[in-house]
Amino acid sequence: MNVLLSLCALERHRDLLEQVRPEGARWFALGTDGELRVEGGTVHWDPETLPLEVAWRTTDLLRGGPLRAFYRLVTESSSLRWLQSNSAGFDSPVLSDLVRRGVRVTTSHIAGPPIAEFVLRAAMDHLQGADVWRESATQRQWQPHDFVEMGSTRWLVIGLGQVGAAVAQRARAFGAHVTGVRRSQSATSVVDSLATPQQLRDLLPSCDVVVIAAPANSATAGLVDSDFLRRMKTSSVLINVGRGALVDERALLASLDAGRPGRAVLDVAASEPLPSDDPLWSHPQVVITPHNASLGDGRFERAAAVFASNLQHYAHGEPLAHEIRSTDLQT
Amino acid sequence: MNVLLSLCALERHRDLLEQVRPEGARWFALGTDGELRVEGGTVHWDPETLPLEVAWRTTDLLRGGPLRAFYRLVTESSSLRWLQSNSAGFDSPVLSDLVRRGVRVTTSHIAGPPIAEFVLRAAMDHLQGADVWRESATQRQWQPHDFVEMGSTRWLVIGLGQVGAAVAQRARAFGAHVTGVRRSQSATSVVDSLATPQQLRDLLPSCDVVVIAAPANSATAGLVDSDFLRRMKTSSVLINVGRGALVDERALLASLDAGRPGRAVLDVAASEPLPSDDPLWSHPQVVITPHNASLGDGRFERAAAVFASNLQHYAHGEPLAHEIRSTDLQT
Repeated sequence: MNVLLSLCALERHRDLLEQVRPEGARWFALGTDGELRVEGGTVHWDPETLPLEVAWRTTDLLRGGPLRAFYRLVTESSSLRWLQSNSAGFDSPVLSDLVRRGVRVTTSHIAGPPIAEFVLRAAMDHLQGADVWRESATQRQWQPHDFVEMGSTRWLVIGLGQVGAAVAQRARAFGAHVTGVRRSQSATSVVDSLATPQQLRDLLPSCDVVVIAAPANSATAGLVDSDFLRRMKTSSVLINVGRGALVDERALLASLDAGRPGRAVLDVAASEPLPSDDPLWSHPQVVITPHNASLGDGRFERAAAVFASNLQHYAHGEPLAHEIRSTDLQT
Repeated sequence: MNVLLSLCALERHRDLLEQVRPEGARWFALGTDGELRVEGGTVHWDPETLPLEVAWRTTDLLRGGPLRAFYRLVTESSSLRWLQSNSAGFDSPVLSDLVRRGVRVTTSHIAGPPIAEFVLRAAMDHLQGADVWRESATQRQWQPHDFVEMGSTRWLVIGLGQVGAAVAQRARAFGAHVTGVRRSQSATSVVDSLATPQQLRDLLPSCDVVVIAAPANSATAGLVDSDFLRRMKTSSVLINVGRGALVDERALLASLDAGRPGRAVLDVAASEPLPSDDPLWSHPQVVITPHNASLGDGRFERAAAVFASNLQHYAHGEPLAHEIRSTDLQT
């Protein structure tokens, strides 16, 4: 069994990978130079003589890493049987094509903790008026102000996957009241109450914190439009850690100017990186972060644990966790 | 029974106060103009004809309120039997004098939630490098960075009263490992482990977040000195929500320049308000807030609930919660 992964991932997780290595499996490690190494040497890849069976797509491949070479290898390899992605999202056409070809693709749902921490910090920064403290400090002014406690806040968390659930759990540890929005209304203990997407707009006028933690698809695109925003409280904050496509950014700027919501924290944008001339950068009620909420330092260990577990399942012919079905693909 | 309180507190909590009003009790409400009102009229206070029995010292008296007139009334009234303070701290000489005179004084322990929220936000602001995002945004630069997750952090919480316990509970909800420092080592479930003040310094090199939540007294004054600071990690953050007297500010500035800790968040200072020429204001690794961490909007309701409960106990001759004993007084 030939396993393709990045040299970075192999070096970072060598101990764990050796512990779970199936009999006869070999690691083919792709360096940032685009070279493929096996057992320390460099090999010339030939689909006939070196059939890849498994591929592990880690996030180090994406930012400055050899993603292009990785995708060329998995795309050209007719022997590939399974690819494990470190991401939860499934909006890459390369992965969709693999599924259509009959390659098994599994996703990872490991970004809950860091994204939830990002959301809680961003929400409390708004509720506490921390920007006022920062501004006063630059003026050397000692001016206390009352702030809003979490215990008196109502949250609306749109999307109750790994991220929405992690946000809800932490917000409730502070005493916040959390309503979760999702299509399925099956019972869950992670929120105080559940609402359907149809009920969502009627709840907006009573919510202090609205978190977008839903994926981008045809049902969610443009969800946050003028009508949505007009219903929000003047003191409220909108936090988007889902996808930029869910928010109509032009409508958001207009609605912020009209005072609703009081602030928007956007970790994702319709166009990324956000162009330097985008008016979102300079709006005083907008906080921009560079698609950063998932980049907590615990993600590498969690990703490796997911791959190691699925690799053992794969070797034993057991079901794989979070396998994408062709019926999940968007047409 | 004549009860002295602020007009602000009476107006804010009239419904609750009427619910718990003992038979025959009358409210004497002190306005910001220094006038005393009873049942809507203004009275000239005479200790002989209008003996005060109970006084409720709310925080609205302190900041721009009629604290001086309030203290004159309670000091001159020989009939006073009990004063309820809304604060947990007990470093006011007026209150000490009352206890010495035989007046019962009770404190309130209600600041845990807002201070804990302040601490959690401040800690995550540091761990996530949120100041880097803010600076990048002013430059319209989209530059993601890895950040430290709460789940990988070790916390040292010095002082396990209401505030320390509330901090510990919330930090642990994020997966942080919390060691609490206090003199008594009796069992508690609010932290992962306990340490004595003597063990404290040996723990500093392994801690990412150090929270000062202890009162100022002869045992804690100057606790955070050069030796303490030198033991802290370069990446760590010191958060003081106790009292300024616990930190040697000159030693802190020198140690920050030497890189330990990585940051200090000071909600309290040795001299308050912090003088505008104090070098703490401008140090790049210092975050100053104006003794603000307790000013959450839930404090009024919590304070009124404490007073209402104790007023019922008082009327029925039952023990009062959090009564100061003369043996608690510092000499």
